[in-house]
Amino acid sequence: MRARVGFPLVVVALSLGSGCAPGPSTPPRGGNGNAPVLASWNEGPAKAAILRFVANVTTLGGPGYVPRPERIAVFDNDGTLWAEQPAYAQFQFAIDRVKALAPQHPEWRTREPFNHLLAGDMKAFAAGGEHAMLAVVAAAHSGLTTDEFASAARDWLRTARHPKTGRPYTGMVYAPMLELLDYLRANDFKTYIVSGGGVEFIRAFADSVYGIPPEQVIGSQGKLRYEMQNGKPVLLKLPEVQFVDDGAGKPEGIQAIIGRRPIAAFGNSDGDREMLEWTWAGPGDRLALLVHHTDAEREWAYDRDSPVGRLDKALDEAQTSGWTVVDMKADWKQVFPPR
Amino acid sequence: MRARVGFPLVVVALSLGSGCAPGPSTPPRGGNGNAPVLASWNEGPAKAAILRFVANVTTLGGPGYVPRPERIAVFDNDGTLWAEQPAYAQFQFAIDRVKALAPQHPEWRTREPFNHLLAGDMKAFAAGGEHAMLAVVAAAHSGLTTDEFASAARDWLRTARHPKTGRPYTGMVYAPMLELLDYLRANDFKTYIVSGGGVEFIRAFADSVYGIPPEQVIGSQGKLRYEMQNGKPVLLKLPEVQFVDDGAGKPEGIQAIIGRRPIAAFGNSDGDREMLEWTWAGPGDRLALLVHHTDAEREWAYDRDSPVGRLDKALDEAQTSGWTVVDMKADWKQVFPPR
Repeated sequence: MRARVGFPLVVVALSLGSGCAPGPSTPPRGGNGNAPVLASWNEGPAKAAILRFVANVTTLGGPGYVPRPERIAVFDNDGTLWAEQPAYAQFQFAIDRVKALAPQHPEWRTREPFNHLLAGDMKAFAAGGEHAMLAVVAAAHSGLTTDEFASAARDWLRTARHPKTGRPYTGMVYAPMLELLDYLRANDFKTYIVSGGGVEFIRAFADSVYGIPPEQVIGSQGKLRYEMQNGKPVLLKLPEVQFVDDGAGKPEGIQAIIGRRPIAAFGNSDGDREMLEWTWAGPGDRLALLVHHTDAEREWAYDRDSPVGRLDKALDEAQTSGWTVVDMKADWKQVFPPR
Repeated sequence: MRARVGFPLVVVALSLGSGCAPGPSTPPRGGNGNAPVLASWNEGPAKAAILRFVANVTTLGGPGYVPRPERIAVFDNDGTLWAEQPAYAQFQFAIDRVKALAPQHPEWRTREPFNHLLAGDMKAFAAGGEHAMLAVVAAAHSGLTTDEFASAARDWLRTARHPKTGRPYTGMVYAPMLELLDYLRANDFKTYIVSGGGVEFIRAFADSVYGIPPEQVIGSQGKLRYEMQNGKPVLLKLPEVQFVDDGAGKPEGIQAIIGRRPIAAFGNSDGDREMLEWTWAGPGDRLALLVHHTDAEREWAYDRDSPVGRLDKALDEAQTSGWTVVDMKADWKQVFPPR
């Protein structure tokens, strides 16, 4: 049937997104017509490992063939698909929201940690550690309906600018990883985000920026409450945690929501270690890949001692297990898409 | 392009499952080549409502057109896709498992509610109410890895027989609803199960019986714990509840996992009321449908007073809101597939 239908079918199938393909024995394809595959990747062990893996699992009749529905690929977000320095975008969103909401909350002027934030004393704020950060995120994220929150997140993403580059945060995505997402989808992988960040925040941009629809975003979750407001049902975001999708929470969340073990996993920090480990331990061919931030000039260089995106235990495990490690400086021709 | 590629493309697209379609302006199609659409449905208001809705949301340029990615349809399972009388299949599975495990648990012989169950005193067991039921389900479902649990559930489904009909439980599915699932998918709907039952139990048969893959099953969840067993990572099922996907939990679970509001919802009991309400309240054309069990001869007849699958408030709301109610006896030519 492929020979009879030919090229137009390939185009139709690609344009339909995940799960659609022309026939059962296609060789690996690029994601974008005639563009070269993984154009922003330099030749080297990382690119070679990706190409070898995809060829192996998509070759019908070959020893590593994996049926399409089982081609699940999971991606961490912060530090893997977009930059996470000097602070998580979602945290900056929460800070900006608290500042905007401050006039309605006079009590914050004398209550920690809000007082430090509003006074611009980031040193005193940072001394509050994770507790202070969670308080700000809870204040910024709860009390809204899910629709209101999505609007607030989209508004912020449209107007906020990254403190170092002045670009919108959605311009701080990694061009080589966008190509990788496209390449996997062109080979009938279903691509998921599995992030420690909040699921509703990531959904506000994942479809337009990564081509990943809302139902393929897994993240940390606050509790929701179904209730009636003015005779209409809404889902209200509560300040209580439902699920933390980080560390061991990543394989737990993957099982709870996808219900299959991925065959490829992509991360950059110790929070991704268990996700890669779980993916790697399955039968058959697997790809486990860490993005190592080695490029102080074009992006940032950090690993074992970084408070954001610490990469320590997972880097050791990558070496003993044989996971693929991307050396950002050596492996990527470009980091961010052209402006 | 459709004219050029023609029939073979339609066949390819259908065979690829959800999300794949030949072109942007196809009229509503049946799910199975030349078979008539919804063949097990008698002509009447329920069938007409389904056909009208699907035609409306799939007609490109029409007033009700809904883009493919937003065509989300959610189905309750027990009593909507398969029979739930005289007791939930999953509860029978739990009872059978407790009996099988009893030799390893001598303490159960003197501990409630296990003692009643093992002595066959279902009256004394029933007096323990929901608490007794949950204790049995927790004992039957926890302490296994997710892989072990899936095997146990599949083994049981292969061997257990329904107490009234002697059929396998997977033969107790409703033929008209299988046709409806196919019909919606042929019109590029993504079909989900959203059940109060346990997600891991339903996944053991949803793909082979309903054509619904694991990642499109939402259900109640126990907590999981990622841990190492003999140097290999496993996900262990714990006896603690993570999420109850029933009543208001259904729209909450839909938002948490799908992140979009469905445009069609199918249920049969008060546990589905909020899911239908949430679906119905969205903008544009919607379908909210209740299966009313009115056929004591071919299945069961029950509604407002039934301890299993009570349909009371939701039936009232169907009448005031204009939801579609299927009269099983009048609307369905056949209930179960031929043996």
